Formats: sequence, structure tokens, C-alpha cells
Amino acid sequence: MLVVAAVGGNALLQRGQPLTAEAQRANVKTAADALAGIVRAGHRLIITHGNGPQVGLLALQGAAYKPDEAYPLDVLGAETEGMIGYLIEQELENALGHEHAVATLLTQVIVDAHDPAFAAPTKFVGPVYSRQEAEARASAAGWKIAQDGDYWRRVVASPKPLEIPDLGVLRLLLDQDVIVICTGGGGIPVLRKPDGSLIGVEAVIDKDAASALLAADIGADALLLLTDVNAVYQNFGTDAATPLDRLTPDEARALDMPKGSMGPKLRAASDFADRGGVSAIGRLADAMSILDGTAGTRVLKEI
Amino acid sequence: MLVVAAVGGNALLQRGQPLTAEAQRANVKTAADALAGIVRAGHRLIITHGNGPQVGLLALQGAAYKPDEAYPLDVLGAETEGMIGYLIEQELENALGHEHAVATLLTQVIVDAHDPAFAAPTKFVGPVYSRQEAEARASAAGWKIAQDGDYWRRVVASPKPLEIPDLGVLRLLLDQDVIVICTGGGGIPVLRKPDGSLIGVEAVIDKDAASALLAADIGADALLLLTDVNAVYQNFGTDAATPLDRLTPDEARALDMPKGSMGPKLRAASDFADRGGVSAIGRLADAMSILDGTAGTRVLKEI
Repeated sequence: MLVVAAVGGNALLQRGQPLTAEAQRANVKTAADALAGIVRAGHRLIITHGNGPQVGLLALQGAAYKPDEAYPLDVLGAETEGMIGYLIEQELENALGHEHAVATLLTQVIVDAHDPAFAAPTKFVGPVYSRQEAEARASAAGWKIAQDGDYWRRVVASPKPLEIPDLGVLRLLLDQDVIVICTGGGGIPVLRKPDGSLIGVEAVIDKDAASALLAADIGADALLLLTDVNAVYQNFGTDAATPLDRLTPDEARALDMPKGSMGPKLRAASDFADRGGVSAIGRLADAMSILDGTAGTRVLKEI
Repeated sequence: MLVVAAVGGNALLQRGQPLTAEAQRANVKTAADALAGIVRAGHRLIITHGNGPQVGLLALQGAAYKPDEAYPLDVLGAETEGMIGYLIEQELENALGHEHAVATLLTQVIVDAHDPAFAAPTKFVGPVYSRQEAEARASAAGWKIAQDGDYWRRVVASPKPLEIPDLGVLRLLLDQDVIVICTGGGGIPVLRKPDGSLIGVEAVIDKDAASALLAADIGADALLLLTDVNAVYQNFGTDAATPLDRLTPDEARALDMPKGSMGPKLRAASDFADRGGVSAIGRLADAMSILDGTAGTRVLKEI
């Protein structure tokens, strides 16, 4: 099978953990061990990953040094593809004993300049703050902010991914049995200008949405959305919480889930299932069991 | 011909220019226009690039935000491969009208833990300072510093590149006529541990040395070391300065050149020429003329 495994920011960095290189490497190592199981089972693998905490960190670092020379989000996104891609590649190669070729490919993803997301930012980036601190930072730096659970965070535009121009290169590598890490952080957001040229844009694409687009366009068999919870729950957060084994795309879309967390995963899973693939959501450590259908929540067109 | 073009940090950022995203993009655009000429002339192309100013900037940004959580140089190097690679890829694709596939590949490069460079740092990173300011920063942040022309800068270990494990992936892409951007900033420095696994190390590899290794190991025909001067000069900086058209590797090594500037270029050019290739040093804008032999300084085994 050709598997797209999307590794969530929350699986790479637990809430409250300091965003140090050491913490990232330790979490990436755990992720790599789980992903290596998919390769050892004989599947071809594409790995995508989130970058919410990391892109937020780089923005804060830039602002702390020279606020007037802060880099735009497309460039920061490219930096996170380098940083996180490197750690995943190295740890995965180590986990596989350097017996499989692994390539990390920078990936641009085209979005629409008229996407309504540019007027209504919803994508969380960076650390969590108290409401008071978030409001102070928002007014100082021109951020938009929104509530994320018990905390507040910066939000940026998250336009819908439309096209992945590097798909041809990705296919060449897959055809030669190379494991590819790509579309990190949902891809580097770019616009196509009337003359056909590409230019970066201030946004962070949702990595689940980009992963679903990638999985569909490359003809993957399975899309795994890997996070820090073991399944999708009905009545999540209440005493009546029940894990769900299987859902149709319509059932998945009808579930009431918080923005910025399980909601985008269910939409992405449904979109890929609509196009004939098997989507599944679950805990990163359970990646192989999720693929086998013995863990996580599957989203399938016909049950 | 298979051409490796190494784009110098000084060609991507002129001394004294602010290291903004806009300035980098404008310089990269100029570079991309020059490199596009090589592709249009029918050659296969690998692009490498420096990262001295950029890796220094990211280190300063991290220190300004949380000095205790500063990232190691391997991770910062990976970030610069993302940032600079993205800009070069996008501008080159635009310059070529999106008619050629371009891929940016993160690249690890193996160095020796016992390399003497770890005890004697020589590689300039980051901005230039007055001697007084450099000394103040060195004592605050534990930097080593050295003189660079009229200024002072931070220096870091620059071990000799030994092996590029991603060469196989690079070859697959070249065989399919993909233009590849790789080994950015000299590659991400890593050590091979006794069990065969790789781990990052605090260093910045000289990009000319890494480009010469890459060119030799991949079997390139020509290595272009592109910078902001039009040729190698005898008696550089004096009234008797004379541009040199051609040198043998031994003549090139015998020239007295400053560390951190033309010296590493001449060594890299000589190493590749020793292994049978054609090396050339010159101005980025002259890339095509340098390849044709009508500009720059060639280093060749037999003249």
C-alpha cells in the first residue's frame, strides 16, 4: 500500500513542553520508531507533519531580534520544513538502520488569493497564553488571536490547499522506493500570479487538509492522521465519551468538533474517503494498528 | 554537461545589506536569472549555496528570544536549507517559466568527530562587528571570533566534509532531468556513530568544500564557484592586481589568499580539478560565460 502519514504538531510536541531542540528530537524519535513499523511491514510511505508550535516560535524569535525585519510566514514555513524534516529524516533513517532511502523535499502548495480565510484567520500558531497576555501581544504585534481550549493563541490565515506543483518530483521518488518527507506544515503557501509565476503569501496551510489533497492527487491507498488521542470520540470531554471505530464521511462531517483540533482532521479524513481512500485518525504510537484497522477511527465511504 | 553551481553567501547578500526577506529574495532572483541560462543552454544543473549570514541571523534570533534554549548549528543549518532553498527554487522555477522540474532536497553531510576544526573554529557566520562589539558578544555568548577584512565576526568549527549519504536520491532525480538544489550551507553537519546511526553536530561545513565533494562523487563535469568578484586575482588589493584566466591545482594552492574568502574556493576548485573536473571561480551574473570559458578563473589539471 502507498500510505500518507500526517504527524500532528501535538504528537511532536506535547502541550506545555518547552520547544527546545532536545524535546523535539526526543518526540521525533518516538514518531520515527512508530513510522518505521509501516516501512518494515512493506508499505511505501509519505510523511507529512504539522508546524504550528515551530512556526510560531520562529516568528517570536524574529520579533525578539528585529521586529521591523520579521520574516513572512511563507519563509518561516520553509524554515520549519527544514528543521522538522531534518529531524524526522535523521531519526527515521536511524530507526530503519539506513537500509531505506529517505528524502525530505521542500514543498510549495498553491492557494487562492481570494480565499475567504485571508479575511478570517483561524489557524493556531505559536505558544498558548492567558487571555490577558495574548491580548497584550496582539495589540503590540498586530496579531489576531483566538481561544484554544483553556488558553489563547495567535491565529493566522489558513487558506484551502488547491494544488501541489511538486507532485511530479514526489512521484519520481516514490517510484524508486524512496520514503519521502514532504508538505511539512501543510506546505509553503504560494499564490499563482496571472503570468504563471509563483509567489509566497502570509498564511499557514492546515497540514491535514494539505495531506488529504496530497494523498488523493498521488493516488495513495491510506491517509493516517496521527495525533495524541487514540480515536475520535462521540461526546468528547463528557462522561458519555465513546470512541468511534468507523464513520462514513457524512457521519464524520456531522460530528461537532472544536475548530483547530479534531475538526480539520475529520474534514480531511472525509475528503480523502470521498475520493475512495481509507482515512484513519489515532495515536501516533499506534500507527501500525491503525493501518491494520485494530486501533483508531476509520473514515470510509462504505461500511 | 552536468554542472554543480555553488552560489556564495556574498552573491546572495552584499556586505552591509540588511538581511531581510526582501533583500534575500531580490538577490536570489538575480541569481536565478543567471542560473536559468545554464539550464536553457541544455545542461543538467545542481545548485548549492552558502548560509553564513543566514545561519548567523537565526542564531541571533534564537538568542534574542530565549538564550537558554538556543538551537544547535545542525538544526539552524537545516532551517537555512529550507529558507534559502525555497527562495532559490521558487525564483528559478519562475525564471524558467515552470517548464523544468526543480527539487530542493535537505542534505546531511558526514564529518569526522576528531576533525581538528572542532578545536580551532575558522568559519565566519553572522554579521560583521567592530572589534569591540564582537569581543563583548563573544564574552556574553561564548562565541569564538576572528577578523574578517576590516571587521570581526563569529567563527564556528568547519570540519572537512567526508560523505554525502543522500547521493543516491540526488542521482535518481538527476537521471530524470530534475534540477536539484541541495547541500545548502555546505550540508547539515552530522557524525556517524559506531552503531552506524547519524547525529547532528555543532558546525558549519564550508559550502565550497562540500560542493567539490558533491561534484566529484556525483561525477559532475564542471564545478562553478560563484561569488561577487569576477575572477581570482594575483596581488589582489594592490595596484598590481591582475585577473588570472587559468590555473593548475598546484598554482591555485600556491596563491596566498585570505582565510574565509577566496582561500576555500581555491582549495575546493583544486580538489575537484585534481579529480579530473573543470573548476571555475567568478561572478554569479557571469555564470554562462564562466561555463563557456570566457569569464572567471578556471582551475584545470592540464593547461
